[in-house]
Amino acid sequence: METIETDVAVIGAGLAGLSAARALEAEGVDVSVIEARDRVGGRTVNEPIGVGKVLDLGGQWVGPGQDRILELIPELGLETYSTFGEGLNLIERKGKVSKYSGTIPKVNPVALAEVGLALKRIERLAAKVDPERPWESELAHFDRMTFDTWMRRHVRTAVARDLLRLAIEAVWAAEPEDISMLHMLFYVRSAGSLDLLLDTEGGAQDSRVLGGTQLISKRLAEGLARPVCLESPVRRILWSGDRVMVLADGLRVAADEVVVTLPPVLAGRISYEPALPAIRDGLTQRMIQGSVIKTMSIYPTPFWREQGFSGQSTSADGPVSVTFDNSPPDGSPGVLLAFFEGKAARDAGELPGSVRQQLVADCLTRLFGEEAANPDRYLEKVWADDEWARGCYGGYFPPGAWTSHGRALRESIGPIHWAGAETASEWAGYMEGAIQSGRRAAAEILAPGGAPV
Amino acid sequence: METIETDVAVIGAGLAGLSAARALEAEGVDVSVIEARDRVGGRTVNEPIGVGKVLDLGGQWVGPGQDRILELIPELGLETYSTFGEGLNLIERKGKVSKYSGTIPKVNPVALAEVGLALKRIERLAAKVDPERPWESELAHFDRMTFDTWMRRHVRTAVARDLLRLAIEAVWAAEPEDISMLHMLFYVRSAGSLDLLLDTEGGAQDSRVLGGTQLISKRLAEGLARPVCLESPVRRILWSGDRVMVLADGLRVAADEVVVTLPPVLAGRISYEPALPAIRDGLTQRMIQGSVIKTMSIYPTPFWREQGFSGQSTSADGPVSVTFDNSPPDGSPGVLLAFFEGKAARDAGELPGSVRQQLVADCLTRLFGEEAANPDRYLEKVWADDEWARGCYGGYFPPGAWTSHGRALRESIGPIHWAGAETASEWAGYMEGAIQSGRRAAAEILAPGGAPV
Repeated sequence: METIETDVAVIGAGLAGLSAARALEAEGVDVSVIEARDRVGGRTVNEPIGVGKVLDLGGQWVGPGQDRILELIPELGLETYSTFGEGLNLIERKGKVSKYSGTIPKVNPVALAEVGLALKRIERLAAKVDPERPWESELAHFDRMTFDTWMRRHVRTAVARDLLRLAIEAVWAAEPEDISMLHMLFYVRSAGSLDLLLDTEGGAQDSRVLGGTQLISKRLAEGLARPVCLESPVRRILWSGDRVMVLADGLRVAADEVVVTLPPVLAGRISYEPALPAIRDGLTQRMIQGSVIKTMSIYPTPFWREQGFSGQSTSADGPVSVTFDNSPPDGSPGVLLAFFEGKAARDAGELPGSVRQQLVADCLTRLFGEEAANPDRYLEKVWADDEWARGCYGGYFPPGAWTSHGRALRESIGPIHWAGAETASEWAGYMEGAIQSGRRAAAEILAPGGAPV
Repeated sequence: METIETDVAVIGAGLAGLSAARALEAEGVDVSVIEARDRVGGRTVNEPIGVGKVLDLGGQWVGPGQDRILELIPELGLETYSTFGEGLNLIERKGKVSKYSGTIPKVNPVALAEVGLALKRIERLAAKVDPERPWESELAHFDRMTFDTWMRRHVRTAVARDLLRLAIEAVWAAEPEDISMLHMLFYVRSAGSLDLLLDTEGGAQDSRVLGGTQLISKRLAEGLARPVCLESPVRRILWSGDRVMVLADGLRVAADEVVVTLPPVLAGRISYEPALPAIRDGLTQRMIQGSVIKTMSIYPTPFWREQGFSGQSTSADGPVSVTFDNSPPDGSPGVLLAFFEGKAARDAGELPGSVRQQLVADCLTRLFGEEAANPDRYLEKVWADDEWARGCYGGYFPPGAWTSHGRALRESIGPIHWAGAETASEWAGYMEGAIQSGRRAAAEILAPGGAPV
């Protein structure tokens, strides 16, 4: 068994861990990054599709307001390009497919008015939540109910509820009944607004990274003084006031401090000796990873474009709830991205891959016509099956968790610091949030008690 | 490292694991029980207080309807005795302590009527839930809301809500906002009725076990062919279709099948190779262990009895929410049991033990007078701090979990079977439920596909 001596051990070579390592190295700190997978990137992963092109099987979008990642990308010699969005969008409900342009689907005006009012209410409430300490907000009582409860109180038409459900599924990969209303408000606040979360152009789905988002992590890792220790799942952390010993498969790392970047539920599966305080353990019992299956169907050309469609659609009928044109920037090959989210992802996750593929083909055919029925190639990633993610896009809290255990999400314990997209207070759950969290953890170590970065 | 070859490995030497082992051995199956702690009994544990007397720091009560444990106790040569309940009970709210007899506290009649109506509604709803498959019930939509949401809809007076909150805390060691309404209904149904759960005489708090409930596990363990392997926390389970290798600290057990009796969150912290299906992993992300601190204050005599008090009280002011006379059957010494539950337990769990002790003394003094201020001895067990329990009394589901992942609570996976009080369909969360679950898991192994016991 190899033993490494270092200043800081970082567990997880995703954007959070690599950002923490980079920030620490910049200040002359010796860092070792330990990763369970055989690759860096965490919940970002490139899938090569030939001739130097790749598709993202994980997180893929960046957008305005995500200042850290938008600055980092060119700094690493990488480029972004706009998500394809020209043409008409589609919405499917009760077997009927309708076209629309812009972000507002054509449904009945009462429902649209209701959705508009609900979104405005949410924005107004979210503005009052302190994303650093949502449990102290005057709105903490929203932690007593699910989003579903709130929605049923404020939204009466079935169409409007369907649209809100689709929004919840699209952002949290969960159902309205899964999520604390306070968590919803926190998350919206951490990104700035719900519009930003939902929008493509000008929103969180605005742009993509040329060569795939995993390149960001690869470049970050290449820039580190020490190579990342891959295929080294961490099993135990022995710790005292000022020293840690991290035990991974085939590796020990002795350090002064450790940054754990795993989603809380996975961080809770590491054995800590001595055992962690109850509030931290309880936190790891409460945060749930979302359910999403990302699929991509590859065609010779993006045929939908010729028919005037953007490739963007949303379906209340499912099981695919959202699609995008995910073709490479030159439009070749044509790629339709289709998500199973929340309940649909859980259900589809139980099916054989071939059945799932057929479900996707059926959905895409209903939306984009017969040409969608037989893709040249089908790719998918069932994130709940990934042992080192156990769900995506990120974690969410059910009711009662923020107010009882929220404090333990970021609060360090002795030499143990917590990072990861779930712990971000800006763009929680996003790549931007992962970077923010990693830099914040590094700052804790560099200037204990100092202000967050 | 010792290696054991056996037919069935059982993880956890609490009532579930030992009941499974006993049922299997009775049919000639070779069993090895593996336990993380240095003792058997799980969430039951005896604390000797001298002259052969003991107090229970964990589960302690049995009552009518719990047929398996009531039959098992005499079978093991043990006896029960009635919980002390003679005299007046007390209720404290807004600084005022009132006496009452029976189970109905003296509060204003409107509030009492509201509570009565709410309890009746709960009983009526619970009767419609199939405890084997609550997610298939016609009431599955109650999984969309917290109990708090339901309560606020049906109960208007603050007094009535306080009383219902106390009931939730007493049964689930959680707050109304933590629990799915469907989980509440499932749990009530699994015990038979809410009255049974709440009552002392004739209910779930009816009787105690002479010598302490841990004796049940000790006797069960003594009756097994192989000694329980203590101090052997299980870290990994390697499995295939028909074989398992259980890796514990200092021990390997090779077997044909394994019964995992840990609460789901702790079962989720074992590393399974191959990794378990997403639905099972997701289940372990969703069940939360309750928060309770059990304290006992020991006095020379049960002085409250002489003043006409039963020792039973409930306080809406807290932080102690419930007390009982927990003296040994001969009334010597006098023991007042006081629980911190739910939020109060989480808050008090963060305090130094001495501060907590003072909080208990203050509460008991308000209720039972100055004589309660200075006990001879104070005992406590902070269950959330216990690494192998991480909460008590048992696990509960927040909204959205039963309907999305409930099926994975009991469904075996290859050679891996699930037991433990959390998996019971009768008296879920109770010692009776633990026994039921262990026997059910044994039956699965003995007669695959057969009817549950």
